[in-house]
Amino acid sequence: MSKNMLETLFNPKGVAVIGASGKELHIGNRVIKNLVDFGYQGGIYPINPKADEIRGIKAYQSILDVPGQVDVAHMVIPARFVPMAVEDCGKKGVKHIIINSGGFSETGPEGAEIEKAFMEKARAYGIRVFGPNCQGIINTDPAVKAYCNFTFTFPEAGHISIVALSGGVAEVIHQGFSAMDVGTRIYASNGNACDVSIPEIIRYLADDDGTRVIVTYVEGLKDPMGFFEAARQATSRKPVLAMKAGRTMEGAKAAASHTGGLAREDMATDLIFKKAGIVDFRDEGHLINAAVAFGSQPVPRGNRVGIITNTGGPAVIATDILVDAGLTLPPLSESTRALLAKKLYPEASISNPVDVLATGTADHYLACLEALMADDSFDCILVHFVTPFFVDTKRIAEAIARINQQQLKPMVCNLMTDRRQWAETVTILKTGGVPCFALPSDAARALGALVRYRNILDREPGRVRSYADVDTDAARAVFDRSDGQTMLTSDQVYEILEAYGIDVPEWRMAADMDGAVAAADAIGYPVVLKADAASVVHKSDMGGVAVNLTDADAVKKAARKMTERIDAPDLRFFVQQFVPGGREVILGSKAEPGVGHLIMFGLGGIFVDVLKDVVFNLTPVTDAEAREMVGGIQASALLDGARGEKPVDKTALIDLIQRLSKLVTDFPQIKELDLNPVLAFEKGAVAVDARIAR
Amino acid sequence: MSKNMLETLFNPKGVAVIGASGKELHIGNRVIKNLVDFGYQGGIYPINPKADEIRGIKAYQSILDVPGQVDVAHMVIPARFVPMAVEDCGKKGVKHIIINSGGFSETGPEGAEIEKAFMEKARAYGIRVFGPNCQGIINTDPAVKAYCNFTFTFPEAGHISIVALSGGVAEVIHQGFSAMDVGTRIYASNGNACDVSIPEIIRYLADDDGTRVIVTYVEGLKDPMGFFEAARQATSRKPVLAMKAGRTMEGAKAAASHTGGLAREDMATDLIFKKAGIVDFRDEGHLINAAVAFGSQPVPRGNRVGIITNTGGPAVIATDILVDAGLTLPPLSESTRALLAKKLYPEASISNPVDVLATGTADHYLACLEALMADDSFDCILVHFVTPFFVDTKRIAEAIARINQQQLKPMVCNLMTDRRQWAETVTILKTGGVPCFALPSDAARALGALVRYRNILDREPGRVRSYADVDTDAARAVFDRSDGQTMLTSDQVYEILEAYGIDVPEWRMAADMDGAVAAADAIGYPVVLKADAASVVHKSDMGGVAVNLTDADAVKKAARKMTERIDAPDLRFFVQQFVPGGREVILGSKAEPGVGHLIMFGLGGIFVDVLKDVVFNLTPVTDAEAREMVGGIQASALLDGARGEKPVDKTALIDLIQRLSKLVTDFPQIKELDLNPVLAFEKGAVAVDARIAR
Repeated sequence: MSKNMLETLFNPKGVAVIGASGKELHIGNRVIKNLVDFGYQGGIYPINPKADEIRGIKAYQSILDVPGQVDVAHMVIPARFVPMAVEDCGKKGVKHIIINSGGFSETGPEGAEIEKAFMEKARAYGIRVFGPNCQGIINTDPAVKAYCNFTFTFPEAGHISIVALSGGVAEVIHQGFSAMDVGTRIYASNGNACDVSIPEIIRYLADDDGTRVIVTYVEGLKDPMGFFEAARQATSRKPVLAMKAGRTMEGAKAAASHTGGLAREDMATDLIFKKAGIVDFRDEGHLINAAVAFGSQPVPRGNRVGIITNTGGPAVIATDILVDAGLTLPPLSESTRALLAKKLYPEASISNPVDVLATGTADHYLACLEALMADDSFDCILVHFVTPFFVDTKRIAEAIARINQQQLKPMVCNLMTDRRQWAETVTILKTGGVPCFALPSDAARALGALVRYRNILDREPGRVRSYADVDTDAARAVFDRSDGQTMLTSDQVYEILEAYGIDVPEWRMAADMDGAVAAADAIGYPVVLKADAASVVHKSDMGGVAVNLTDADAVKKAARKMTERIDAPDLRFFVQQFVPGGREVILGSKAEPGVGHLIMFGLGGIFVDVLKDVVFNLTPVTDAEAREMVGGIQASALLDGARGEKPVDKTALIDLIQRLSKLVTDFPQIKELDLNPVLAFEKGAVAVDARIAR
Repeated sequence: MSKNMLETLFNPKGVAVIGASGKELHIGNRVIKNLVDFGYQGGIYPINPKADEIRGIKAYQSILDVPGQVDVAHMVIPARFVPMAVEDCGKKGVKHIIINSGGFSETGPEGAEIEKAFMEKARAYGIRVFGPNCQGIINTDPAVKAYCNFTFTFPEAGHISIVALSGGVAEVIHQGFSAMDVGTRIYASNGNACDVSIPEIIRYLADDDGTRVIVTYVEGLKDPMGFFEAARQATSRKPVLAMKAGRTMEGAKAAASHTGGLAREDMATDLIFKKAGIVDFRDEGHLINAAVAFGSQPVPRGNRVGIITNTGGPAVIATDILVDAGLTLPPLSESTRALLAKKLYPEASISNPVDVLATGTADHYLACLEALMADDSFDCILVHFVTPFFVDTKRIAEAIARINQQQLKPMVCNLMTDRRQWAETVTILKTGGVPCFALPSDAARALGALVRYRNILDREPGRVRSYADVDTDAARAVFDRSDGQTMLTSDQVYEILEAYGIDVPEWRMAADMDGAVAAADAIGYPVVLKADAASVVHKSDMGGVAVNLTDADAVKKAARKMTERIDAPDLRFFVQQFVPGGREVILGSKAEPGVGHLIMFGLGGIFVDVLKDVVFNLTPVTDAEAREMVGGIQASALLDGARGEKPVDKTALIDLIQRLSKLVTDFPQIKELDLNPVLAFEKGAVAVDARIAR
């Protein structure tokens, strides 16, 4: 459904501009100019009650006077007039409205009211609204050529589509492609996005055959799960490249000040990117370069790169970057070596990188390109090409372009030249669809991004395990019982953990000192004694924990001390089998509104406190993700038994993460849950302290 | 002296080209063309025995026939003819020879012989040789305009100087400036660098008033200490920006294959960069952008940045990058807020970043620029400027350029535009010396580099401490005694440590079991017993260490076991006071040929084995550097007493690092030295195990 609805937005038969203006510096003039200059293939209808024509095009007093079909109506009028204009559009049968004007929810409650008002009308007429407070869209499809936008970059037709709320950043990215003479397919910047959303546009672009790669920029997600679903579906079909800004607290504040949102540290977006299979970036330049490569190159089969160069240093720089990005540089196969030894200069370096020397000819390049394309040792190729005056650079460019057009393996080119003096050479490469980068690092990183997408496609799919031994009803009973509490009591916590098959030491609850002793006797010594009362959150800080109590006397003494120290009428005692040894790990979970829960895993003690060596994921955590988490901490070698210690039961930890994920998914009312510590042994893992806040 | 000698290289009165050619595609033609096209101010003398003129310039049969003064002679002739040609140059009184031809040491021993041969002649005549196998130099000084080079970028006059062995990378960097319409001052790429060296050129550029910033690229250092000294002196006067490639093992291999050097992991170069105060880069694009900023901007007084923008998103991106780079975004002062509230649109965002809105005018920009320049809260300014069609972008550009020319505080500009449509606006900014970057991240990182140089200038100078209590003679006696050994025995090691005032537990050497017991009795229990023999390197693996022996019996038993286990005729026993507790740290040192020694510091155990949480420096380590090392490990909070533990005596560790540095500096024959572990206490630190290899 959404595809069909956006189809006419991006391929409109007629475009009206409500608020069309005769003034050059008015957006209501610029949109018309852009449509005309870009060569829009449909009807253009300026709407202005006082003008007969705008930019030489017949104007209409009202949209209702327009004779032809209007699929898209721009609104470039003060906010307060928009609801009425929407009404008119509805009567005319307009399908989409692009509201370029501002003055809506981004300005405060009054504007938000107007937004609500026009949306009611739009819904009544089945009109989809793009914006408000937005730039608009561009579609370079030669059959459409829709420039429903007031920005300034005039793209060639290409295969990269851009979607972002922020017009400024969308334009920076767009301009980046343009400056490299790389075309785009669809451009969409939807400002406040009160109706047509980023996820919906991503879904449209995933279906659009002309789009080979989708690029987006976000400062936070309005509809995280909608974005996740749309992106996940898209990434299985074509690469989605994304950058999130506002990563730092200061950045988040800057974002909040121009979007009217809340400044907050946002870990969920990164995790959503990862889970959805997005190729993510922290630098818009890297994103632009990667998109250029994706726009023209196939996806590599693996991470093995062959390098061809006619100058040494740049290949060294690229090699460092490629290795950092996880690519490998295998040696040339024997047959490739033998072949090139015959074809290249005797002084040429016949290894990987292959250096044909500055005097290397087009035949030399061609021999290398053909050999590396045919050599099964390589999945992709990086070509460095500096243009010395003493070789026929045009013929070299032709060789590179010809091989590129066979699309056998992805190839990027680090073209080091002066574009003015070597304009023809540059044009041959560009026309041949060779992604060219002036800097070796940029070329290498773009290739690295292609390999990242290969790794995403090859990810183990993973599944959310179901557990036959989980007793959801038992846990639900505890939650029902604890309604109104913000912290669950120890017995409630451990009942829930047991219901979810999470190993805990044997435990009993006792109302008083004698009860505690009886409980300890029943469990068997040694035991741990913990004070339990609503007011006792930080038990150990308040002297509310005593471990390794070896007999009844010790239990009695400890309970007495706690009674003296903690003055709480609801004080009870939680008695637990004492479990010595094991490697301390911690698991945690935190509700993330609109997303689900974050799940955290790490080693305990200094590893979390000092080294912050923890990993996160989002619910529901699949088996593959749980495995990745356990292997993903920096000190993971310790779990494998580094330094002569025994390895721990990673399978148990992976299972535990999934049970925890299921628990918080089943009970969204859980605000925070900590298993700290969990003791991991050679066989099994036991949660010896736990806390649940709701 | 070196300055004077290079003075004529970079400012030659006359240039001869030996091997001048009439063929367009010959370097001997291109150099003449480049000199002419660039507008060289001196005499040009083609040398060719068979031609009357080259490119319309009178040619000479021999350099001896040239009537005018020749300061620089290019050689573009086969290697074997070079020694003879050098002889002729000597007779003519040529001061510098630039050998563009290859075929020398880079090709193997035969070429190296030729290199030796011509260098002998050059030295005899006092000629300095630049190259061979090199591009040459460019000097853009309008009074000189020397383009003694066969490359293709024609730079405007500017303030950035480039020096690198690699012509390919030097050209990439040079082309980077050119593509941004930024001029350069001096360009020097010296290939094999058999005589005129990178350090010598850096010294010349440090003295050159026209050079505001020096840029270099290396794949390794031929003369590490010469480079260090030259760079250290230069960085106190002007910024030196450098990048080292071949960081990865694969990159080092690629570098070795084109320089003929050895592939090896090179940690020393990074440490030399740091110690010399170089602003270092891992990405040539970042280096280029930083150089552009340094070329026109003053050094900021601190790290506080104010941002002005007319579009939200790009300022969010920049903020993230700035914060990552250690800059802060303070709030506007009250008076700035009050002032801007009067001058900007009511909807403008008057905080940091200041958002004047897309419709913001030149007056708005000017008000912000003046206010932030006057506001003591800020040390530098980042201006984002997108060019909407509906504002007077030329006037905005004029405002930015005018404020920039006051050079009150450094400023960089993220200019988001289409260079073709807004050519005049772009020109105003460029002419005004405003460093302009198309991407917000690039602008932010360039500003970050300016602040990095500020931090380098503000570094605590640090001094190499001298120690009155160090007994060098005693240590020397041990080294004299141990001549011929590769590993020192325990008594030798501990004697040396004691001579250098390094705390060790009380110890004795014993020839046999009874001696060991006597030694233990004398020291007092508990003790540690260690087997000592030339063949026992990994003592603990061989069961050659027994700790916490509490009485004579235990010592006897342990000694007997070791005797049985270790079949070495030279077996002796090292008896040492047992020191319980303390935080395990490790110190180490390793000889680095041509540089001195690496000094390593870290926490012991898993921190070094699993987490690799160690820091390095180079001898001689100053007090400031030792302090930085101790504070520089990731887990340094543990030394301060995290998690309720007692803090350790960091002063003792800082002292220990310096004593170790002095020891290995005084005795360069030390190949490796480990103090592992050192036990650090609340007061003091004791080396309980140590090893010295020579």
